[in-house]
Parts: sequence; structure tokens; C-alpha cells
Amino acid sequence: MRILVINPNTTAAVTDLVAERVCAVAGDGATVIPVTGRFGARYIASRAAAAIAAHAALDALAEHLAGSGPPCDAVYLACFGDPGLAALREISPVPVVGMAQASCWAACSRGERFGIVTGGARWEPMLREFVSGLGLSERLAAIRTIATAGGEIARDPGAALARLAAACTACVSEDGADVVVLGGAALAGLAARIQPAVPVPVLCSVEAGAHAVLAAGKAGRCARSAPTADTIGLAPALARLLGGA
Amino acid sequence: MRILVINPNTTAAVTDLVAERVCAVAGDGATVIPVTGRFGARYIASRAAAAIAAHAALDALAEHLAGSGPPCDAVYLACFGDPGLAALREISPVPVVGMAQASCWAACSRGERFGIVTGGARWEPMLREFVSGLGLSERLAAIRTIATAGGEIARDPGAALARLAAACTACVSEDGADVVVLGGAALAGLAARIQPAVPVPVLCSVEAGAHAVLAAGKAGRCARSAPTADTIGLAPALARLLGGA
Amino acid sequence: MRILVINPNTTAAVTDLVAERVCAVAGDGATVIPVTGRFGARYIASRAAAAIAAHAALDALAEHLAGSGPPCDAVYLACFGDPGLAALREISPVPVVGMAQASCWAACSRGERFGIVTGGARWEPMLREFVSGLGLSERLAAIRTIATAGGEIARDPGAALARLAAACTACVSEDGADVVVLGGAALAGLAARIQPAVPVPVLCSVEAGAHAVLAAGKAGRCARSAPTADTIGLAPALARLLGGA
Amino acid sequence: MRILVINPNTTAAVTDLVAERVCAVAGDGATVIPVTGRFGARYIASRAAAAIAAHAALDALAEHLAGSGPPCDAVYLACFGDPGLAALREISPVPVVGMAQASCWAACSRGERFGIVTGGARWEPMLREFVSGLGLSERLAAIRTIATAGGEIARDPGAALARLAAACTACVSEDGADVVVLGGAALAGLAARIQPAVPVPVLCSVEAGAHAVLAAGKAGRCARSAPTADTIGLAPALARLLGGA
Amino acid sequence: MRILVINPNTTAAVTDLVAERVCAVAGDGATVIPVTGRFGARYIASRAAAAIAAHAALDALAEHLAGSGPPCDAVYLACFGDPGLAALREISPVPVVGMAQASCWAACSRGERFGIVTGGARWEPMLREFVSGLGLSERLAAIRTIATAGGEIARDPGAALARLAAACTACVSEDGADVVVLGGAALAGLAARIQPAVPVPVLCSVEAGAHAVLAAGKAGRCARSAPTADTIGLAPALARLLGGA
Amino acid sequence: MRILVINPNTTAAVTDLVAERVCAVAGDGATVIPVTGRFGARYIASRAAAAIAAHAALDALAEHLAGSGPPCDAVYLACFGDPGLAALREISPVPVVGMAQASCWAACSRGERFGIVTGGARWEPMLREFVSGLGLSERLAAIRTIATAGGEIARDPGAALARLAAACTACVSEDGADVVVLGGAALAGLAARIQPAVPVPVLCSVEAGAHAVLAAGKAGRCARSAPTADTIGLAPALARLLGGA
Repeated sequence: MRILVINPNTTAAVTDLVAERVCAVAGDGATVIPVTGRFGARYIASRAAAAIAAHAALDALAEHLAGSGPPCDAVYLACFGDPGLAALREISPVPVVGMAQASCWAACSRGERFGIVTGGARWEPMLREFVSGLGLSERLAAIRTIATAGGEIARDPGAALARLAAACTACVSEDGADVVVLGGAALAGLAARIQPAVPVPVLCSVEAGAHAVLAAGKAGRCARSAPTADTIGLAPALARLLGGA
Repeated sequence: MRILVINPNTTAAVTDLVAERVCAVAGDGATVIPVTGRFGARYIASRAAAAIAAHAALDALAEHLAGSGPPCDAVYLACFGDPGLAALREISPVPVVGMAQASCWAACSRGERFGIVTGGARWEPMLREFVSGLGLSERLAAIRTIATAGGEIARDPGAALARLAAACTACVSEDGADVVVLGGAALAGLAARIQPAVPVPVLCSVEAGAHAVLAAGKAGRCARSAPTADTIGLAPALARLLGGA
Repeated sequence: MRILVINPNTTAAVTDLVAERVCAVAGDGATVIPVTGRFGARYIASRAAAAIAAHAALDALAEHLAGSGPPCDAVYLACFGDPGLAALREISPVPVVGMAQASCWAACSRGERFGIVTGGARWEPMLREFVSGLGLSERLAAIRTIATAGGEIARDPGAALARLAAACTACVSEDGADVVVLGGAALAGLAARIQPAVPVPVLCSVEAGAHAVLAAGKAGRCARSAPTADTIGLAPALARLLGGA
Repeated sequence: MRILVINPNTTAAVTDLVAERVCAVAGDGATVIPVTGRFGARYIASRAAAAIAAHAALDALAEHLAGSGPPCDAVYLACFGDPGLAALREISPVPVVGMAQASCWAACSRGERFGIVTGGARWEPMLREFVSGLGLSERLAAIRTIATAGGEIARDPGAALARLAAACTACVSEDGADVVVLGGAALAGLAARIQPAVPVPVLCSVEAGAHAVLAAGKAGRCARSAPTADTIGLAPALARLLGGA
Repeated sequence: MRILVINPNTTAAVTDLVAERVCAVAGDGATVIPVTGRFGARYIASRAAAAIAAHAALDALAEHLAGSGPPCDAVYLACFGDPGLAALREISPVPVVGMAQASCWAACSRGERFGIVTGGARWEPMLREFVSGLGLSERLAAIRTIATAGGEIARDPGAALARLAAACTACVSEDGADVVVLGGAALAGLAARIQPAVPVPVLCSVEAGAHAVLAAGKAGRCARSAPTADTIGLAPALARLLGGA
Repeated sequence: MRILVINPNTTAAVTDLVAERVCAVAGDGATVIPVTGRFGARYIASRAAAAIAAHAALDALAEHLAGSGPPCDAVYLACFGDPGLAALREISPVPVVGMAQASCWAACSRGERFGIVTGGARWEPMLREFVSGLGLSERLAAIRTIATAGGEIARDPGAALARLAAACTACVSEDGADVVVLGGAALAGLAARIQPAVPVPVLCSVEAGAHAVLAAGKAGRCARSAPTADTIGLAPALARLLGGA
């Protein structure tokens, strides 16, 4: 099975972090094909950056499908916030799993009320709406962000670990969470490191999505639903994909 | 007062249609500055096309703000579906009004349960989610789409009038609507033409948004809320705007 | 265009305050016809007072329509809480705009989460239900009331300004609002005075409604939907209006 | 125990119908004090009539409390739609039960999904909002109205029985209801007559409310919560009650 | 009228407490038949205990129906949390009232926002979901639990009274409740004792349910809706009842 | 990895069907330990049967944990409706996945609006509430049941295939589903057989849950949250587990 991992921000180091985690989860079961957004924000920390990332994710899928290699069996949209997820599903010939969606559902199957901890203050209202759109507002104990954005955490995770752990613990003691999602591509793998300091399970969003995309890839095919569209000004591969080619 | 009218699809003829309607509503009260998306679908009729249009709308605002002319006092996002609305508000120094949002609120102040009629079958689920996001699901009587997409209607409105009127009337007789929104930039001005055939008020989405953007422009300023972001691969004006310039 | 401004409480001084603000917003674009409730509470600060005000608002519209002057083109129900709004719409031959409804929608087009600040503690649960009825509970950051009721504020606004500003600021710093509505007819015009002390936009509810009613008046006609009713004990004009005359 | 039965429409014959049913339910357990609205619609079949009825209900309670007789132990607001219920509770020294609220809760304790059948087409949207306000939208199978209004049914119930039974049956066979509320003061007692023709329990709204008000009267006291208000133009008893006398 | 009172936990002393309260409410109007769960937790304070209690409640009803005495006219499920309520209604030939459901509805007819106070920390999330399932989340001010579980309170109520009163008062002063339900079979009768210390009405859940079950018993019959089922391993009476005997 | 598959009905043949499907999904990745409910309905087709099944599922887990074999790494509650899921999670030392919950989330990651097809008319309202409890009501296109219950289908699947396929297709053509869940343990493996006759993906609920439980088993540990409870009348293993042993 081949998994296309799309990092819709434009920082290849984050893509590498994510790909490494997905490989670790997949073991021999799948080949990981990592791609990075070709345009947009280095780190996604606003609605504007997320809107552009949705386009970049579509572009990345189109490039992959137009490539000479074998097509993937499933797509992993590896940004906690899932920019462009519904649009990707519309044009993708294979299942698409979003990191935030998969993480929230995993959290709901592991506890009664979940907290989310991530980096970057603007994510709080964005994720609140995201969770509401999933119909899970009543299950959400809290969203806590630390001022350091995901990008900075990725560059120096050690400095952020204590603050992430403190935020996770506050989700439990102050907000009543019984499971916490550590959300964000740049935080890949940190959940295990802070788990000892947190009294409830801490889920790694990258791993939660990885488990889900492996399951989706095994379970099967999807139907492309988007009508064809004439376009201008897009990258050739995306234009062809939207045009029905 | 100067109103920037952003048509986020890439068909200048639709931009002209919308601009003409906005001018008619504004009279001497405002100058209209129409712009058309520089990339993306000719007509927006899918989630993928809408996702790209959100980027195009941000790009259009950035181009305007970077231009040599005086800046606008308000922005009118003139696509029924409001792609990129929240992102635009995040980076815009002036109020931003979305055509669909303004139309739904206008409908709710004119009747108890509203219907929406537009072109293109894929809009039905997209608009249903949009209305749900506004918290208005209980006020929505029905969304009815006619197979002909907005683009085709714009090219030959005469042929579509009877079908649009029939869909509006069905919203009333079958779904219980007491007001109907004729939604879509490409349908600008058609509401008045089909009104005689429909037993309840038919709102033109272009005009509803025009009234709202004029009010917003008069009422005032906004606060830019997006953090600055380093980017790659974007048009220079958008990169500068996101970068905080 | 002629705008009927109905103040459904029974204090003419508040009517004057509101009318002055509406005239300022309308400029040359409209003639304002102010009317005051003929019975009920001096200031509306309870459900009981609001229930009576709904009747008074219907009575005021009927008196206007029965009068010898030219009929209005739109009605502005100028009480933050909109008592009788749906009933007015049912019997009015022209569009009716409610101050609170228009303010909440304006706030939602200006920010992500809005606060409401008003006078009189009983308004808090009443407005919470009102906002819920609009489907906007998730967008509401907080409702904060100051102990001084609207009426007292109208008599001595200076004394209340600092407390209103503090309440608005608390909506931002403690509740996460990025826009605040200063709600209440008696607070007409105070938003501009406290704006300098508040870090996010403060909307004047009277002005927000004024913009909306001007737009509604321009956009057009409505359909009277109430069945005729035999009545006893009502003022003649209202009896005739309900009776279908 | 003394039960004040307020019929907020202005038709004494309906008051008599209701009082008779309440007496039948109460048996020796309570004395019924019936009062009729002193102003407003003969039959309530619109939002405007309901708004006026709210005022009339407050007026009726004030008259009773100002009277020379012993005060009541509970109040029964006997109109299916509960006009003014929250306002009555605010100023009443004893518990207040609304006919529609009590009926909906009774229906929810008797089945999974309930239907409502009543007379007068305008009640459909009004009751849909009412049920939504109770948080019971998902439990509501359907609201079906027959064209004949409650008033006409009260005058000639025989003619309406077959149509009411057909509407109840349609709630079951077409809408999936497993219990039906026959709603409306004017329909007092008809549930038993059409029950044989309907395959699920048919609840009489008048009786459902009667059971609830008897329980409320036994269970006890309430706290008046409305602040005092200066008023003009009201009946003396209501003015005194609102004024805190 | 005969009321079957099912205490689905396995502590007969609690059954006695409840039965005494129901008798006090019913006076001469009804005969109370108390039964205690034959298996399961001594006190129900977790989801697991509640799940088993649902089975025990079905078993208790079946035993009663299979008994030689006259059948009951209504069933009172006397555990605050209503384990098995919908299942009981499915197989019961007479109306079934749940203590928590009846209490929440009684609270909503007595105030605008209600609090719940009970013993045992695990009840908080369980009751929050319960209230949400009733559609009453927006009416719920708070759920406050005291560490002492219901069972311990029943054994030594004196020691718990001050803490229960403090929790009730906190619901008012910190959470904005204007009515509080003291929930739990083991707390039968304590509401009256702490009422003097609480500034708003305190409802006894046992009494609230008692009033409701008496009303339901008077109002009448229900339709058994469960299909017959072959079973193994159940008590003979329950097996026969499920089997359609 | 060891997966405990609990079939909470009492038909071992259904357990075998499910276990075979889970083994097929797991391949070499996991050992499947199938257990069947020791008491309750042969087939679960009512709320009463589901309530008893919740107890049976707890009992089955306790028996497993008390057994001499190595403990499982994850639990699969293999009944479409998930009876006792939250209670199981409370007392389980390892993650618990419910078939219906996993299937609904899988459907939401595969399409925009999902349909559910299952056997037994009573499941319709039960599953509607279940989906509502997940917050997915707006994503649910329809629930369609065929009169034949799951048990009969398991005994003679051939006869039911055409009707199941027709129901799935109706979910698409009449209700707008773009993905359908074929729900029910007894329907294990039928999805693939009817897929050719249905124009959108048909998910096998048994397989969807199997994928999810494998992912949960890999992702890790959980925290037991139930307080200990004294019990009577339960099987020794369950009594010990609840008692904290």
C-alpha cells in the first residue's frame, strides 16, 4: 500500500518529521510518499494561511497523480486543521484522511471529553469551529494553545516540552478532559515524551491520522464527485485534474 | 465610499454583471472597483473550485491594497458561497461582506423560512453546510439547484428564467418557504424578472450583498487579526500582505 | 424613503435619542418618523415589560398605518431585544428590522466572536435566549450587563461610560470577543465615545439597526402573512389592522 | 388547592370548555378559577394575536391577584402555544404551567417521537419554533394543522372530528409518531373521542396541562424574579403588580 | 391507582426511603409497590453500574408483571439518571416515569436555568449527557457533585446537609441557576431540609418524579412497542415478557 | 496483538461470522478472541434487548480478564448499536471500539452524507438517536431498515441481498447519500456482495470496526475510570472487576 502524505505548509523539515512518524506506524505495511506544499506559508497559523494551504494541497495531489510513479492508495492530509480536506475528497480517486478529523475521532473513542493542545494562538477559534463542524462541541473540554507556534516548536522541541505538558495537564485539571490530543505536524512524536507528565492519555495527532489512513487505504476505494471545471492560471497538473483529464 | 467587488471566479463577464448591479444599488453613494480572480475555475461549482477561489480572493485583495489607487472602504466578496470570507476578514483593513452570508441574513429578516435557488447541483450540499455554519438550518426551507450551472445561465439567462421561477415556486409550495434567495453572481438581476411568477419575495443575492456592503462601509473600520507569516511561491502583493508589510 | 422608528417603551426622551441617531445615519436618504409606545414600562428590563412592549409595538404600527400621512417604507423596532418583531413582520406591509437582530448579524460580519454589553441584569438571560434563537450561540463570547439600567444611563450617560467601557473590555480580555455590541436604545451614540478605551470595534446597536433598515427599505416589499382576526378591547386602529381592514 | 386557569383569548366559551376539563381531571383535589382575556383576538391564530395574548395573560393574573378572593396556588396558562409563559413566571408568586410545554413533555414521557395536531395553518411555524425552543426538535415527528381554526372547531366539533383523526393518523403512518398531542384549548376533550380511530395514544393538551398544574401546585412555591417597573397606560392592577405593589 | 416504584440499585434501605416519599406525595391517591434491584451495584455511581441497573430494572418490571398481585397503573424508575428508561417504556404496558427526566422538566417549569446537585463525581459527565439528550443543555446552569456518594449520604444524611446546601448555593451564586434539583434516590426528602439555606427553590427529585408518575398514572395507557425476542440466560419472568408472553 | 471480539447477543453463529471477518481484515497482524454473550436476546432488535446486551458485554469482558489466557490489547464491541460501549470503556484496561461508532466515523471520512441500512424496524429510531449522540445528525442522509431482522439475514443471506441492495440504492437516489453503511454483525461480509449493485461505496460495519480496533490496539493504552462498586447477584468475574480487583 502506498500512502501519499501531503504536508500543505511549505516547510520540508516538517514533512520529514511527519513522514518519519507515519513510517514508524506503518512498519512494513505501507510505503510513504511525502510531499510538501509548493506555495503558501512556512507554518500555517491563520485562516489566510490555511486557505492558501487548501489550494496547495489540491496542487500536491494533482502533481502526484500526474507523476510517473504508481498512484497512491490513500492520501494523508498532514496538517492539524485539515485545510482543503473536503475539496481533496471531491477530486481524489482514493480515500483521504485528515489529521485533525482522525485525531478528534480517535480521542472520542478513547475518552469522554477531550482536550486539544497546539501551538499558535490563532488556532484556538479555528479549531473550535472545526470541532463544532464535526458535531463534537459537547465532547470538547478545551483547546489550549501555547504562544510558541508549531514552527518554532519543530525547530526546538525541547524548549516547548514543559509548556506543552503543562497545557495538557491544565486540560485535565481545569477543564475536565480525560484524553488530550497533541495537535500539529510539527509536534510529531512529542506526545510520547510528555505522556509521563500527564495523568491521562496524550494522543499524537500525526500517529492518530497515520493509523486512520492505513485503515482507509486497506478498506478501499472512493468515488470522485467533482464536476469538471475549466480553469485558468493553475499549475498544469491541477488544471488537468479539475478538467477531468 | 469605495467598494472593492471581488469576483473570485475567473470570468470577467460575471464581474461586469455584478458590478453593474452593485452600481445600481449604490447610486451616487459609492464608487465600485471590480476585480476578477486571476486563477481558478471559470465558474465555481465544486468544493475544489471554491477552495482555489478562496486563495484567488486573498490574492485579489492584496493586489488592490498594493495598487496605486486609493484603498477601498469595504470589500464585497461576490460569490454565493463566500469562499475565503473568514480569511479575507482576517487580513483586510476594512469590513468584508460575503454575498451568501448577507443574503441569508436578509432573507431571515424578510420571512420565517427561506429557500435558496441556484445553478449547479454540487452547490446543494455546500450551501447546506454553509447555512448550518450560520446557525440557520432551522430557518432553511430548501435549497434547490437547477442543472444548468451559473455560468451557462449568465450566457443565456432567458433560457433559464422559467426553470428558476419554477424552482422558486417549488420552494414555496412544496417546502414552505416564505422568501426565496436567488443565489449566484451569474444570476445578478434575474430576481426582479422572475418575481412576478413567484408568490413570495425573491431576493437577488447580488443586491442583498450590495446593500450590506454599503452599510458596512459606512459603519466603519475593522481590526486586522492575522499574525504575519513567511511564505513562498505566492504573488508578491499577497506575500507582502501576509508578511505584515 | 420614510422610516417608522418604533420605540416600544414609553419614554419619549429615548425615542428622541434614537431618532437623532437614525437621522444621522440616514442623512438625506430618508425621513424618520419616530413613535413611542402608548402603554407599558418606562424602560424595558424584564420579560413582563417586553411582553407588553410587543403589544405596544403592534399598536404603534397600526396607529401609523391608520394615520393621514403617507405610509412608511420600512419599520425600525428600536428596542434591543426586539419585542414583537415576528408579530410585527406578520402584519406589516413593509420590511421590519429589529435592533438586536441587525446588531448581532452586523457583529458576526465584523468579527468571529461577539460580546454584548447592555444595562439591566435581567437582560442577560433574555438576550442569551435571543441569540440562541438566532442560531448564534457559538459565536457569542459573552453578555455583560451593568447594574444601571438603560433608563438611568440615558438620563446620565457620563456616569455610565467608564463602566460600559470596562464591561466591553472585559468581553475582550476575559471572554475572547473580537467585536462588541453596545446594546440598547438608551445607549444610542455611546459606542463612539467608549471606542477609544476598547481594543476591538464597538458597534452601536442603534446605528447597526439604522443601516439595516435603510437597506431593507431600499430592497423592498414584503408579504403580510397574518390571517384576519376578530378582536375585542384593542385600540381601534389595531383592531382594524388585525381585522384585515 | 386553587388553580387559576387563564384563557388568554377572549372567548368565554373556550374558557368554559377548558375549565370543565380541568375540573374533571382535578376531581375534589382542587378548585378551578377560570378567567378570560379582557382584550385581544377571539381565537389566537397568528403571532400578532399571540403577542397581544401575552399581555392579556399578564393582565389576567394581575386582576386575580388584586381581587378580593384568596390567591391561587398555581396558574394554568391555557392556550396551546403558551403566550407570555416566561413573563408570567417572572411576576407570578406561584408556579405557572403552560399547556403546550406540559403537553410536549408529557408526550416525550409517553413515546419516542410525537406529533402535534391542531387547528389553524399559522400555528405550524409558531409551534415548530416553540418545540425547538424546548430542545425537542429531534423528538418531533410532525405538526399537522387542519384548515379549520380552533374557534370553528369549538363551535362545531363534530364536523372536525374526522379530519382531526385523519391528521393524527397521518402523523403515525407518514411521519412516524408513536404518540400524538391534540393541541388547543378549543379541542378540550376531543382526544378521547378520536382515540379509537388512531393507533397510538392521543393526548389531550388541556388534560396534560391540568395534570401538570396540579402537580406544580402541590410541589410548591416560586420566587418572583422581575424587577419593579414604572409603567403608563396599563390597567391599574397590572401597573401595581409590575410596580412591585 | 397502583404505582410500581423500581429502585434499580440493590439497597433496600434506599427503596424504603423513596417509597416513603412517594407515599407522602400520593396521600390516599395511590398505593405504592416498592421493589429493589435483584442484582447490580449497591449504589449506582458509574456507567457500568448504570448499565447493569438497566437490566435490573427490566427484570424488576417483569417480576412484578408476572406476580400474582394486580398489575400496576404506572411505573416509577427511581434512580436519578433513569437507567433503562427507554427500554422499560418499550416493554411496559403502563406509563413509565423516570426520576431524572421528570425532575429536569419540573425544574424547567419552575425557573429559567437549573442546577443539579448530587453525590458521586462520576455522575457529572453522565448527567451532562443525560441533560443534553433531553435537549436542555442551554437551560442547565451547572451540575455539582459532592464527593460523598449517594449511598453514604443515605446512611448519614446529617453530615452531608451542609455540603449539599453549599453546592446548591454555588449553583446560584456562581453558575446563575434560579432553581436547583437535589438529585438522587438516597437524598429523598433532604431538599426541604436545605431549602432554608438556599435562595432559590430546591426541588426534591424523588418528589418531582412522584408528582409526575401520579399524573401519568391518571392520564393513562401506553402501547407496548418492543418486538418479541428469543432469549437465553435471563430470569424466567423477563424471558417470558420479552418473548411476548 | 490480541483483539477481544465481544458479540453481545447470544448467537454463537453470529460471533463466528464476525470473527471470520475480523481475522480477514487483521491478517497476520492480530489474534482474534471471539466471545458470545452468555445471556440476553438471540438477536438484538429492541431497546430492551440492547439494555440487557450492555450487561452481557460487561460480563464478557470481565470473564475474559479473569481468564487464564493473556489479556487482550483491544476490545471490539461487535454489535451495530454499541450497547454498553461507554460502560465498557469505563472499566476496560485497554481501548474499546464500537462497531457502529467506528462505522459512522469511517463513513464520514468517505463521503459527505451517509446512509445506514440494517435489518429490523426497531433499529431505526435507536440508530437515529445514536447518530445524534455522535453529533452527526446533519451528515446522516437516511436510515433504512428491511423488515427481515439481522438474525434471519444471517441464516439466509441470499434471500436478503436484493432487498439490502435496493435499500442501499434508495439511500442514494432518494435520500442523497454518497456512502452507505451496511450495519450489523449478522451482515458481515455482505457489503462486498451488494457493492456491484450500488452506485456509491458500501461499507461493511464489521470491517470498518475491525480496522478501527486494530488501529486502537496499536495506538495504545487507556485509563480505567470507574470507581469501585460493591455489588450483589452478578457473575463472580464481573463482581470482582467492578469491585476493583
